[in-house]
Amino acid sequence: MAWLQITGLGDSDYLAKAGAVLGLHALTLEDILNTRHAPKLEEFSEYLLLALKLPIYDPEENYLITKQLSLVLGRGWLLSFEEGGSNDLSPLLARLEQADSRLRKRQVGYLAYAIWDLIQDHYFAALEKMSRRLDDMEDMVLESPSPEVLEGIYRLRRASVSLRKVLWPLREMASSFQRIASDWPGQNLSPYLRDLKEHIVQAMDMNDILRENLASLMDLYLNQKSHRMNEIMKILTIMASIFIPLTFLAGIYGMNFKYMPELDWIYAYPLLLGIMVVVVVVMLFFFRAKGWLGNKN
Amino acid sequence: MAWLQITGLGDSDYLAKAGAVLGLHALTLEDILNTRHAPKLEEFSEYLLLALKLPIYDPEENYLITKQLSLVLGRGWLLSFEEGGSNDLSPLLARLEQADSRLRKRQVGYLAYAIWDLIQDHYFAALEKMSRRLDDMEDMVLESPSPEVLEGIYRLRRASVSLRKVLWPLREMASSFQRIASDWPGQNLSPYLRDLKEHIVQAMDMNDILRENLASLMDLYLNQKSHRMNEIMKILTIMASIFIPLTFLAGIYGMNFKYMPELDWIYAYPLLLGIMVVVVVVMLFFFRAKGWLGNKN
Amino acid sequence: MAWLQITGLGDSDYLAKAGAVLGLHALTLEDILNTRHAPKLEEFSEYLLLALKLPIYDPEENYLITKQLSLVLGRGWLLSFEEGGSNDLSPLLARLEQADSRLRKRQVGYLAYAIWDLIQDHYFAALEKMSRRLDDMEDMVLESPSPEVLEGIYRLRRASVSLRKVLWPLREMASSFQRIASDWPGQNLSPYLRDLKEHIVQAMDMNDILRENLASLMDLYLNQKSHRMNEIMKILTIMASIFIPLTFLAGIYGMNFKYMPELDWIYAYPLLLGIMVVVVVVMLFFFRAKGWLGNKN
Amino acid sequence: MAWLQITGLGDSDYLAKAGAVLGLHALTLEDILNTRHAPKLEEFSEYLLLALKLPIYDPEENYLITKQLSLVLGRGWLLSFEEGGSNDLSPLLARLEQADSRLRKRQVGYLAYAIWDLIQDHYFAALEKMSRRLDDMEDMVLESPSPEVLEGIYRLRRASVSLRKVLWPLREMASSFQRIASDWPGQNLSPYLRDLKEHIVQAMDMNDILRENLASLMDLYLNQKSHRMNEIMKILTIMASIFIPLTFLAGIYGMNFKYMPELDWIYAYPLLLGIMVVVVVVMLFFFRAKGWLGNKN
Amino acid sequence: MAWLQITGLGDSDYLAKAGAVLGLHALTLEDILNTRHAPKLEEFSEYLLLALKLPIYDPEENYLITKQLSLVLGRGWLLSFEEGGSNDLSPLLARLEQADSRLRKRQVGYLAYAIWDLIQDHYFAALEKMSRRLDDMEDMVLESPSPEVLEGIYRLRRASVSLRKVLWPLREMASSFQRIASDWPGQNLSPYLRDLKEHIVQAMDMNDILRENLASLMDLYLNQKSHRMNEIMKILTIMASIFIPLTFLAGIYGMNFKYMPELDWIYAYPLLLGIMVVVVVVMLFFFRAKGWLGNKN
Ligand SMILES: [Mg+2]
Ligand SMILES: [Mg+2]
Ligand SMILES: [Mg+2]
Ligand SMILES: [Mg+2]
Ligand SMILES: [Mg+2]
Ligand SMILES: [Mg+2]
Ligand SMILES: [Mg+2]
Ligand SMILES: [Mg+2]
Ligand SMILES: [Mg+2]
Ligand SMILES: [Mg+2]
Ligand SMILES: [Mg+2]
Ligand SMILES: [Mg+2]
Ligand SMILES: [Mg+2]
Ligand SMILES: [Mg+2]
Ligand SMILES: [Mg+2]
Ligand SMILES: [Mg+2]
Ligand SMILES: [Mg+2]
Ligand SMILES: [Mg+2]
Ligand SMILES: [Mg+2]
Ligand SMILES: [Mg+2]
Ligand SMILES: [Mg+2]
Ligand SMILES: [Mg+2]
Ligand SMILES: [Mg+2]
Ligand SMILES: [Mg+2]
Ligand SMILES: [Mg+2]
Ligand SMILES: [Mg+2]
Ligand SMILES: [Mg+2]
Ligand SMILES: [Mg+2]
Ligand SMILES: [Mg+2]
Ligand SMILES: [Mg+2]
Ligand SMILES: [Mg+2]
Repeated sequence: MAWLQITGLGDSDYLAKAGAVLGLHALTLEDILNTRHAPKLEEFSEYLLLALKLPIYDPEENYLITKQLSLVLGRGWLLSFEEGGSNDLSPLLARLEQADSRLRKRQVGYLAYAIWDLIQDHYFAALEKMSRRLDDMEDMVLESPSPEVLEGIYRLRRASVSLRKVLWPLREMASSFQRIASDWPGQNLSPYLRDLKEHIVQAMDMNDILRENLASLMDLYLNQKSHRMNEIMKILTIMASIFIPLTFLAGIYGMNFKYMPELDWIYAYPLLLGIMVVVVVVMLFFFRAKGWLGNKN
Repeated sequence: MAWLQITGLGDSDYLAKAGAVLGLHALTLEDILNTRHAPKLEEFSEYLLLALKLPIYDPEENYLITKQLSLVLGRGWLLSFEEGGSNDLSPLLARLEQADSRLRKRQVGYLAYAIWDLIQDHYFAALEKMSRRLDDMEDMVLESPSPEVLEGIYRLRRASVSLRKVLWPLREMASSFQRIASDWPGQNLSPYLRDLKEHIVQAMDMNDILRENLASLMDLYLNQKSHRMNEIMKILTIMASIFIPLTFLAGIYGMNFKYMPELDWIYAYPLLLGIMVVVVVVMLFFFRAKGWLGNKN
Repeated sequence: MAWLQITGLGDSDYLAKAGAVLGLHALTLEDILNTRHAPKLEEFSEYLLLALKLPIYDPEENYLITKQLSLVLGRGWLLSFEEGGSNDLSPLLARLEQADSRLRKRQVGYLAYAIWDLIQDHYFAALEKMSRRLDDMEDMVLESPSPEVLEGIYRLRRASVSLRKVLWPLREMASSFQRIASDWPGQNLSPYLRDLKEHIVQAMDMNDILRENLASLMDLYLNQKSHRMNEIMKILTIMASIFIPLTFLAGIYGMNFKYMPELDWIYAYPLLLGIMVVVVVVMLFFFRAKGWLGNKN
Repeated sequence: MAWLQITGLGDSDYLAKAGAVLGLHALTLEDILNTRHAPKLEEFSEYLLLALKLPIYDPEENYLITKQLSLVLGRGWLLSFEEGGSNDLSPLLARLEQADSRLRKRQVGYLAYAIWDLIQDHYFAALEKMSRRLDDMEDMVLESPSPEVLEGIYRLRRASVSLRKVLWPLREMASSFQRIASDWPGQNLSPYLRDLKEHIVQAMDMNDILRENLASLMDLYLNQKSHRMNEIMKILTIMASIFIPLTFLAGIYGMNFKYMPELDWIYAYPLLLGIMVVVVVVMLFFFRAKGWLGNKN
Repeated sequence: MAWLQITGLGDSDYLAKAGAVLGLHALTLEDILNTRHAPKLEEFSEYLLLALKLPIYDPEENYLITKQLSLVLGRGWLLSFEEGGSNDLSPLLARLEQADSRLRKRQVGYLAYAIWDLIQDHYFAALEKMSRRLDDMEDMVLESPSPEVLEGIYRLRRASVSLRKVLWPLREMASSFQRIASDWPGQNLSPYLRDLKEHIVQAMDMNDILRENLASLMDLYLNQKSHRMNEIMKILTIMASIFIPLTFLAGIYGMNFKYMPELDWIYAYPLLLGIMVVVVVVMLFFFRAKGWLGNKN
């Protein structure tokens, strides 16, 4: 079993030469170097190409990127091509160094499975982070719904839609891989690949639930804002409805007509103040009856 | 027929040893101990693994949790593993103690069915509680739509989405179980399993209707708020539209110009009061014609 | 051909004895007595069980209930079990009393079809009433959108969702019945059952359209409220924008400063009134230009 | 080839007699006379029944009606029954009068196809009118969103839902017709019926797009109203925020306290006016900074 | 291999004659000249008709148009008909001029593939532009949500719905082409057509994601507007709630009653000013406690 691991796709000339030496088709090399297409599995006469995607969710930026990791699986040999510099397969290297690891005793098909399974864990990690983000935003919507949360919901929804885009083809690919691998003698990968497919479907389910909850959360935001607007308007209406009539009454007796008999009457001023108190009390009862005030409702 | 019942999954060392003694696969033990995956049915050469989920809806917290209950079904023996301490299978133990119970006379497949059927009843219980919760919230939305109801609707929707997530695989599992059990000699489980599957589908339907009603209820909430906002704004507009012009009129005759002939005219004050009454009456007729006031509409 | 008609399911002891005499399975009796499950068709060796649902829509309460009507169809005999006291099958009895009716000349399978077809008419009656209710509410939303309409839309939507729940299994049941009946000698029910199934599908379509229209109507309500809010706010804004500046101007000349030369000027008062008229005219032109006033729009 | 054309279904006695003479089944006559059911194709031993629907969209009323046009297609003869008095088949009659028309040279199956194809053109005509209506309403929503447009959108959506209801069964019918006609010797209708089915699918697509655009347009309306409400509230807030503080200031110096030293100070009045100007300028800068005023945004 | 390229469909008489000379069916000519139908593939005994659509998205107008490009593919010859004057196939002509190009060495089926593949690139170009437009509008919604953005979202959504309409049939056509081409000797187009189909599906996915993001963006717009309305109303409520009560107080002491003892008291004026300051401070604390002011929240 031979595993040749290539990290970084910057030096395309070198890769082209290496591809030619290794007998890779020109289209295969193109697929490895072009990291913008969807995940794909393609069968060639001499090898199998698996172009996988490793998702990375950045909670700071609320943004999802995917790195391409391509596997070329031949009879007894495996090539892996990783986009970017970091080595995401190091856990497998560690396991391979252990003399008695299961990985060491199995064939190259199992190694391909093990790499894919490792990649699949990154989906759960990303979804876990995204769910935690959702929970945070949920609290914010319930406590203080600001436009920043709104933007956060929108960005997370975009990330979830992008994730769905890469998960859909992966399920099909796992089925194809299972079908192809069932013909390989002495490898019995079937239970492992069934488990892998189960993981993909579970990630899809988690993602669907996430997106559905995000839609609910956006509705919740709108409803919260609607409630807050009502509260604001109640305060304005209470203030205006109490003081505007009182100001009018005061305005009446601020007029300078010569013949306003009330002005000369000694009890007019306290009586008017009393009437104003009555108006305030009546208005307050009215608003209380509407349930706008205090603990009545 | 032998039934070994294990309650609580805390002591994983003990379970590992027991599993080895009973000949369970390492993957089976993992599935029993890891309670976070979806329900699943897996066929091994010596036994059948059924990882079931028992839903518990807490109306106080408006939150749904699921407990895992795994069954390992061999030829003539059954192992059950329950997450948590409470014994949810006690009704079956009571039935088994009765000398002439149907449960006692049948084989181990029937016992597995009886356990699953008992679990399935918990789904109806949870959905019943959730529906009652919906009805309560419906009354609250129609009478006094507060943000607490809103949060309640949102939480119930999340609970319903979670429930769907466990119900979907259960239906598939019941079909697989039916197919597998049809080969077992002398057990004739088919009518029972058909009934079980019917129960699962019915729970799914109830859950779908619940979620659809929740979506309608959220729309209703928004529309209610919208109606209440209109009512608030009508009051504000009526108050402001009546008193602001009157206050302006009073303001006019509160001015201190030297030459304001009206001020000296003896009928000016009562005439102005009369004009103000006319303004109020006209405004009230205008608002009544718009249907904002009283029993006109 | 023998038809035994049982009305009301209250006396379960009597029904249990009758069931035993007639050779009904314990599960069949349970299904007949338990009226809360979905419609179902079950085949037994000696008979066929059809548990049907008869919908009753109450326009006063805007609420849908279903009554269970179970048929047990044996070789040459038919049992019917109706929930509740009213006899919904009386039109059939009347037809049977006519000496030359088609019903009299046919076999028991045709009778079962005739009963089901009669039940299916109740779906059209209910949907007809529900559609009429929708049309009424549509007028109300367009003329005076009150929260009562809103509640009505919500309740009708719930009724429609419930109706869908019983219609779905009925379609499957009609297919199964057609398949089973195709083996019965000398009854040629096929064209009748095809027609029955067509009726079920048509009821489903009508119900789908009803629900879709209800969703549109709820959108319309929200939009109507939004429009009315705009109208209310325009009135408030026009009133406030015209009179608040005028009141300010009057307030200026109501001040008691010693040195306010304007106060002594003889043309100040009429000039100020003129300025106020200009302000009003300018504001009215501004609002008219915005299309808020009169027939400009 | 014989074509008997019957226009208007008013005289049902005459039709019943004619049907009996022509050997039509009682159910066929019922289907021809009852114009409220969905389109349908039914095969009898002696003839084929095609109950088609001709849509008529009235842009004035924004309402869709359908007229039933039933074809009974026998060996060498065709009956057509049109609901209502107008003759929608006159273009075909004109073509038949031309001595060398293709219609004259073909058999009766081709005539049935030609009639259906003519009917199908009415769907495009109706959809064309409906799309034009959508475009008009789109302009209205963008320029002056009134409740009339809203009602128009709602009505057009209902018309589109009704249209879908008749288009769905037509597609199935065309497939059935194609299958049945493939057995007819010497008529080779296959390319024509494939084209017909393509037209039906295209009408369905146009209708789906129409409905989707209507949903978007209703969203647009709500958003437009929301924007306009914001504009109205800005004006109110600007007016109130500028003049209410100024009026308060004027009110202060309108008070009649004996000891208000400012009142006697000679520069108090111009100073206060200066302060008021500063307040106005500050408020205007504040609103401009918020982007509520002028071309800053 | 012969390729006859026809640009512009204006001279229909010439095309009719050319069609007759080349042995094209009348229906084929109609399909080539009528550019309003959906993309289609039709098989004739002597040739294959491919009516393709080339999308052009104009970001200025935010509008999508499609140009029809029809291919008639015979044994060893290819006709191409382009709507409009511009030559969209020039890249292929350039490649054909190169002596050693792969295009030159292959048969006519490969040429048809190469044309279609070139057309398919226009879909990616259009989608790329549309996505960039979405990103621009996203920024605008988050920064300054104006009705122009709203109209832009609506128009882009329409463009996306139109694009879906042409992409759906293309996928089916690619499958049919692949099936038909698999019978052609010595051309081995299979891997190329599989790649082409993959491109179509990818364009559909991109378009679906675009439309989903547009729906989210419209929700975001509404929510943004709702937030801004809240901000506007807070300012109005703060201003009104502070100054209306103060104006009332000033109004009280502006009254002209003879007996108002406070007026003569020397400390009344400063005391009242002090009370007013207290009122303002209390109101500000109230609004700050509600989180409406400053950096508290
Ligand atoms: Mg996205
Ligand atoms: Mg999005
Ligand atoms: Mg899912
Ligand atoms: Mg799911
Ligand atoms: Mg799901
Ligand atoms: Mg939404
Ligand atoms: Mg949720
Ligand atoms: Mg959830
Ligand atoms: Mg369901
Ligand atoms: Mg349902
Ligand atoms: Mg459902
Ligand atoms: Mg909704
Ligand atoms: Mg809504
Ligand atoms: Mg409902
Ligand atoms: Mg339908
Ligand atoms: Mg329908
Ligand atoms: Mg439908
Ligand atoms: Mg909607
Ligand atoms: Mg509608
Ligand atoms: Mg409709
Ligand atoms: Mg469509
Ligand atoms: Mg479409
Ligand atoms: Mg579509
Ligand atoms: Mg929407
Ligand atoms: Mg909405
Ligand atoms: Mg659109
Ligand atoms: Mg469109
Ligand atoms: Mg897609
Ligand atoms: Mg997709
Ligand atoms: Mg997608
Ligand atoms: Mg929304």
